[in-house]
Amino acid sequence: MWEEKDNMLCKVFVFENFTQAFAFMTQVAFLTEKFDHHPNWSNVWNKVEIKLTTHDAGNTITEKDRKLALEIDKLIKPSFLD
Amino acid sequence: MWEEKDNMLCKVFVFENFTQAFAFMTQVAFLTEKFDHHPNWSNVWNKVEIKLTTHDAGNTITEKDRKLALEIDKLIKPSFLD
Amino acid sequence: MWEEKDNMLCKVFVFENFTQAFAFMTQVAFLTEKFDHHPNWSNVWNKVEIKLTTHDAGNTITEKDRKLALEIDKLIKPSFLD
Amino acid sequence: MWEEKDNMLCKVFVFENFTQAFAFMTQVAFLTEKFDHHPNWSNVWNKVEIKLTTHDAGNTITEKDRKLALEIDKLIKPSFLD
Repeated sequence: MWEEKDNMLCKVFVFENFTQAFAFMTQVAFLTEKFDHHPNWSNVWNKVEIKLTTHDAGNTITEKDRKLALEIDKLIKPSFLD
Repeated sequence: MWEEKDNMLCKVFVFENFTQAFAFMTQVAFLTEKFDHHPNWSNVWNKVEIKLTTHDAGNTITEKDRKLALEIDKLIKPSFLD
Repeated sequence: MWEEKDNMLCKVFVFENFTQAFAFMTQVAFLTEKFDHHPNWSNVWNKVEIKLTTHDAGNTITEKDRKLALEIDKLIKPSFLD
Repeated sequence: MWEEKDNMLCKVFVFENFTQAFAFMTQVAFLTEKFDHHPNWSNVWNKVEIKLTTHDAGNTITEKDRKLALEIDKLIKPSFLD
């Protein structure tokens, strides 16, 4: 579930290990290039935290962020998470 | 199923699209660095063909190839394929 | 130098090692997603061979291939090659 | 220059754009898997911040962190930065 925090749409994704986390990050990277909308994101081993906000709109959450969030969720197949 | 062809262990993996194929390739790349055993592989859009052989053993199939093949198969979760 | 061979624009890129080759492949992957034009490409350790052709134009070389070739060349900084 | 901050070895790397930053991250990812020592790192567009600390040593900076920092610096060729 994406949460709104400090004018950002935030979610933490947890994987089995680092390489699964990084394979997910690679897919997110492709999406964000396509949308030309890049996240503020961080990783520690099997955890990836993504924070979305629109700089051009004064760092508020816009439709762009909500659309990207939806596309990121589509990447997460059950096998990544159980 | 891996097949033996021209002294190589070969398999074709099919994904939904290019980014899923490339995310898989990223995971395989990590494996091959860990094993220090690199495939002869190719990609066209959603297809990845991997061919394994051991150069140091005169380009024959060795235990190294069979072990790497097993590890690659473990990366393939059902969600990638259906 | 890109060469025309079997109706494809072909070039082999050589790097210092596998991880440099794969970092290059990651950048090419981003480009090809942006162009929505995917290569027929292969890798063995430090070598990446890229073959460009346009399926929709009956597997001939088109402007799309020439443009993508130019963009791929821009990725190759001297440091990758010496 | 790596700086010590809150018991972590920290450095910010700046690139020309997102895909160059992500290609660098891919190379760092390979290194950290090899070292089996994973950073706390974050990215926003062309900036990558890496923080190294050793959890098993009570979150202090150890030789492991200093060695990984050195290897990461070797990835940074002049072409990435100018």
